[in-house]
Amino acid sequence: MLRFDNDYTQGACQEVLDALVRTNWEQTGGYGKDEYCRQAEERIRSLCQAPEARVHFLTGGTQTNLTLIAAALRPHQGVLCADSGHIQTHETGAVEATGHRVMALATPDGKLRASQLEEVVRAHAEDTNREHCVQPGMVYLSYPTENGTLYEKQELEAISALCRREGLLLYLDGARLGYGLAAARDGMDLPSLARLCDAFYIGGTKQGALFGEALVVPDPALLPELRYHMKQRGAMLAKGRLLGVQFLALLEDGAYFRLSRKAVDQAHALAQGLQAAGVELLYPQQTNQLFPILTRAQADRLAQGVVFSPWSALPGGREAIRLCTSWATTDQQMQELERLLRQAIA
Amino acid sequence: MLRFDNDYTQGACQEVLDALVRTNWEQTGGYGKDEYCRQAEERIRSLCQAPEARVHFLTGGTQTNLTLIAAALRPHQGVLCADSGHIQTHETGAVEATGHRVMALATPDGKLRASQLEEVVRAHAEDTNREHCVQPGMVYLSYPTENGTLYEKQELEAISALCRREGLLLYLDGARLGYGLAAARDGMDLPSLARLCDAFYIGGTKQGALFGEALVVPDPALLPELRYHMKQRGAMLAKGRLLGVQFLALLEDGAYFRLSRKAVDQAHALAQGLQAAGVELLYPQQTNQLFPILTRAQADRLAQGVVFSPWSALPGGREAIRLCTSWATTDQQMQELERLLRQAIA
Amino acid sequence: MLRFDNDYTQGACQEVLDALVRTNWEQTGGYGKDEYCRQAEERIRSLCQAPEARVHFLTGGTQTNLTLIAAALRPHQGVLCADSGHIQTHETGAVEATGHRVMALATPDGKLRASQLEEVVRAHAEDTNREHCVQPGMVYLSYPTENGTLYEKQELEAISALCRREGLLLYLDGARLGYGLAAARDGMDLPSLARLCDAFYIGGTKQGALFGEALVVPDPALLPELRYHMKQRGAMLAKGRLLGVQFLALLEDGAYFRLSRKAVDQAHALAQGLQAAGVELLYPQQTNQLFPILTRAQADRLAQGVVFSPWSALPGGREAIRLCTSWATTDQQMQELERLLRQAIA
Amino acid sequence: MLRFDNDYTQGACQEVLDALVRTNWEQTGGYGKDEYCRQAEERIRSLCQAPEARVHFLTGGTQTNLTLIAAALRPHQGVLCADSGHIQTHETGAVEATGHRVMALATPDGKLRASQLEEVVRAHAEDTNREHCVQPGMVYLSYPTENGTLYEKQELEAISALCRREGLLLYLDGARLGYGLAAARDGMDLPSLARLCDAFYIGGTKQGALFGEALVVPDPALLPELRYHMKQRGAMLAKGRLLGVQFLALLEDGAYFRLSRKAVDQAHALAQGLQAAGVELLYPQQTNQLFPILTRAQADRLAQGVVFSPWSALPGGREAIRLCTSWATTDQQMQELERLLRQAIA
Repeated sequence: MLRFDNDYTQGACQEVLDALVRTNWEQTGGYGKDEYCRQAEERIRSLCQAPEARVHFLTGGTQTNLTLIAAALRPHQGVLCADSGHIQTHETGAVEATGHRVMALATPDGKLRASQLEEVVRAHAEDTNREHCVQPGMVYLSYPTENGTLYEKQELEAISALCRREGLLLYLDGARLGYGLAAARDGMDLPSLARLCDAFYIGGTKQGALFGEALVVPDPALLPELRYHMKQRGAMLAKGRLLGVQFLALLEDGAYFRLSRKAVDQAHALAQGLQAAGVELLYPQQTNQLFPILTRAQADRLAQGVVFSPWSALPGGREAIRLCTSWATTDQQMQELERLLRQAIA
Repeated sequence: MLRFDNDYTQGACQEVLDALVRTNWEQTGGYGKDEYCRQAEERIRSLCQAPEARVHFLTGGTQTNLTLIAAALRPHQGVLCADSGHIQTHETGAVEATGHRVMALATPDGKLRASQLEEVVRAHAEDTNREHCVQPGMVYLSYPTENGTLYEKQELEAISALCRREGLLLYLDGARLGYGLAAARDGMDLPSLARLCDAFYIGGTKQGALFGEALVVPDPALLPELRYHMKQRGAMLAKGRLLGVQFLALLEDGAYFRLSRKAVDQAHALAQGLQAAGVELLYPQQTNQLFPILTRAQADRLAQGVVFSPWSALPGGREAIRLCTSWATTDQQMQELERLLRQAIA
Repeated sequence: MLRFDNDYTQGACQEVLDALVRTNWEQTGGYGKDEYCRQAEERIRSLCQAPEARVHFLTGGTQTNLTLIAAALRPHQGVLCADSGHIQTHETGAVEATGHRVMALATPDGKLRASQLEEVVRAHAEDTNREHCVQPGMVYLSYPTENGTLYEKQELEAISALCRREGLLLYLDGARLGYGLAAARDGMDLPSLARLCDAFYIGGTKQGALFGEALVVPDPALLPELRYHMKQRGAMLAKGRLLGVQFLALLEDGAYFRLSRKAVDQAHALAQGLQAAGVELLYPQQTNQLFPILTRAQADRLAQGVVFSPWSALPGGREAIRLCTSWATTDQQMQELERLLRQAIA
Repeated sequence: MLRFDNDYTQGACQEVLDALVRTNWEQTGGYGKDEYCRQAEERIRSLCQAPEARVHFLTGGTQTNLTLIAAALRPHQGVLCADSGHIQTHETGAVEATGHRVMALATPDGKLRASQLEEVVRAHAEDTNREHCVQPGMVYLSYPTENGTLYEKQELEAISALCRREGLLLYLDGARLGYGLAAARDGMDLPSLARLCDAFYIGGTKQGALFGEALVVPDPALLPELRYHMKQRGAMLAKGRLLGVQFLALLEDGAYFRLSRKAVDQAHALAQGLQAAGVELLYPQQTNQLFPILTRAQADRLAQGVVFSPWSALPGGREAIRLCTSWATTDQQMQELERLLRQAIA
């Protein structure tokens, strides 16, 4: 059975695997205070053109989100996000469990607009009873979004400018950041993110690492004691070097970007094929996720040979599904998927 | 530089490494709902003679402790532990961050006594103002303790009996469980733990795994929704199978117990050598940790060649240090350590 | 300046004031374990026809809501409520601060429908990834709602039946319960609430008490240790008898219901007058709150002589305002308000 | 039955009662934004010689403690206190429920020493693994302590200096502040507290108010958004003016200090009488609490006519009890108590 249901069905890319095997028997100190983490941090600073940035390595996305958000907010503050945002939809209330409201805003495509954020912030500021309301303290967004869409650079700049003007922190969830940057056509890159965001993470789990996310805090004066928070939330790996080793392997020769690029190209070719065959997509394909709209019969036929994620039921008995390419998708797998799609659609 | 400062300085044992490499390119579902986790759970149930037990795989000890404790307690309850207990001393208030007090009790050796627990529970029950006090809801203990000592089986039975009589949950932190069971001379084993405890974990990180702990809840009616809690606390690994693969490799042919036994034997030989050379130990050596008491000059000489953990300053300018053998300690490393110790002590 | 902006602008009704003065110099034990609280509990049990119910006295609504909800939910659970519900809109994230998500659902009038609750519960139960989502654990509703509307008895019965079938708790916020019961035309009464709800409170602050809410938990097996939670949340008044004294004064001769009835009648007469004068109401008037829709000029004129609450801006430059009668509203105040309204509308 | 078990057995002093009755029918805005609260704040600023201070009115001590502490600490920080401190012993883990550890230190008399605080802070700062430990962020102390003892002014100055040097906040629980200031013989006064502490509260509940505590934050730049936190914790009274009215009545003509003085004098006379009769006190009597040591038979005889608080069992079958005078204690009550004590002791 072919799996295209998500981008974490397999282990690690060869570069990471080799590095883990190669370094396995070395002795190092624990908790991320080792030479590999130091070098990986240095490499990320360099890629971000943020020589003062602090980089922390954590094992997963939910853990990274809850640790950063809880560390950054004050108790009476909440975090604004799209109603499709991961912290709202699929983290079992992890943010609320740290005491903070997730303030979800409706979006057509998973992307927050600076204008809607401004409206919320202004309404709060002008409310004479605002002390009875949760104070917006942070904006959380995902790049790419959970719908596979991308903020234009100028959209992110507008949000960043708003946040700085209004005293909100801007945090970007980069679980699939590599795919996003590979797909961007407007020069969005790590230095831009380091310039525009107060914190963001470079996702490893879905992009070639066994596991791991690299959290970047560009301003060293912000959250200088984040390691306490990491330990408190169970987010400090004993053998922390495993994360440094992996990110170094991913980033030192560009494997991270190369693998991301390939997956995006595969998804793009697939999208073109589907559209040529008359299949609509729920959202425009930009990254490694695509959301074809099928009839129930087509979906059932496809399910004979491919594991995919159900996404949403649509009027007229149709349904959108999610297909993901990944850092591990081979050309053979793509050919087989295309064959099965042709059969299903026919 | 030789490292004997802890038991997590190296990667994984060969069995685990091979299994990770061998399974790397397989495609499986995520979040621990895969065949490897299923088999590892089955293997652990069998080893525990607890066919109905639920087994959950998490990445680290703090994470396991905070997730289990927060899931099991009611808001007004706290957890009783030794004042040297890990949740009290080295988890940055992780339990309190979930809303619960750690109620630390003084012990000479890291071991709680049933009698002292009973005293606390009785005092609470008899207090007419008890609603103004934290209600004891759980007993947390470590096997081995943070001091490397072991509960006798009858001591644990007394604590377990007390807990059941008084309605407290009994949770055992097994970060170094393998070393403890290898050292026990009274038949303490996994089935005993499964019979006596409401929850306990089999530590992997310090005993041959890259990372990972296997949390066992013998009674399936207790905490049936623990997976929600795991996700909420950021404790559900996306590629959950990595944990199943590792525990299967550790447990299917007994590597876990073999490696633990070897480390305990090494520590035992070392303790005998030290004592023969007139070096006192702070606590009796039982497992893979030992705590020799050195003069300042001896410690300084030793530090030239060996990394160890400072433990506590003692009267008369002496100090106790901690040395740990591990699943990865080689005979050559032991010989070199012994040589350096002889030099330092001389 | 006449105030009709809310129903807590004045102190206590004469019955309550007299009782406080009369009992002032008596000596009693603290924390609600006194004879007045015992008698008030007994009186409420009797009025509710719930002889086994536990009654707790707290000082305010937010405190009551957060204490009850946090005590009743498990960490991975959230509370369903209308998007206009007080816990969602005006408690500064008090529920989230205890670790739980408020799951707000859209309503046209502040009233949840059993069908929409059922949809949410079913969707959660059928989601194969439900462990990644907040589990609905409770339904919170207000009677009357924040919009001054009332659940029909059969609507509440349908919600209650759903909750019992699906294992959700049903909690009813009765900050203005007296006004609601006074306005109900379908036999809704305290025994019905005690039969249909798992917990509800009889609001005192807005209905004749200086302060205080009486939380009723009909089933004594539910939350038997709620007093611990009250103390933990700072919700146990040292001189607890003050609450018992007040509720006894309100309930022993029916002052609570008499005063509520008068305020509802005043509001009803006012609504009829406004509608006769061609003023529309945003929601149908049922209880002591009414929401006339005015032009900006009308509102400005009215604001010369009356303090009211702005409610919402409407298309066409119109705006809805809120006017509240209360237990303390006199006939003279009503006449003066009517005069000022006529001037403003003209 | 005579009650001397605590200082909150009766309602309010005459000045407070009269003020509540006098203002009962006035209409004011809610939540503490009224003229009475404004004037009471002004009065307290003046008494503290702290013209910029912010004053907040809350209903009880536990509520005040948890609100202030949770608002001031960062998530990884704990609060240092004496092991007899109220937040450690009698608030059901209220501080932990907001996510923070109470770090209790042993004291012989309820008073923290600057030197022991310094030791804790230094040990933390020098610990290379300090990120694994709770960071001390605040010192909590009580004036008077729960044992009725008082910090000397120079003791408090030493603690304050340490806190400022080390970046800790200093918070003083003044549940019985009036009694403490009345008893102080070293010039301790409100301006000193405002100069030395980052926050403290002037207790009303135990000193003439029906209920209420006035929280003073001398530096307006510290916690400017505390009202959000108050609302979130259920600590903002709807009819907030009730608190302003009471504190104004207590403070405008010095009733607060006069009533406190009288109670301390009564306690002092009582202590002298007891000592003359050969009864030892557990702690030196300084304020309105005293802790005579009785035999079991004496205590039993006394219990026939007086309600007191059992305090602690002592060797030799003796026991310490607590007797409290209060703002409401009359000369007749004192005479009767003395008579009963004489009988019991004889």
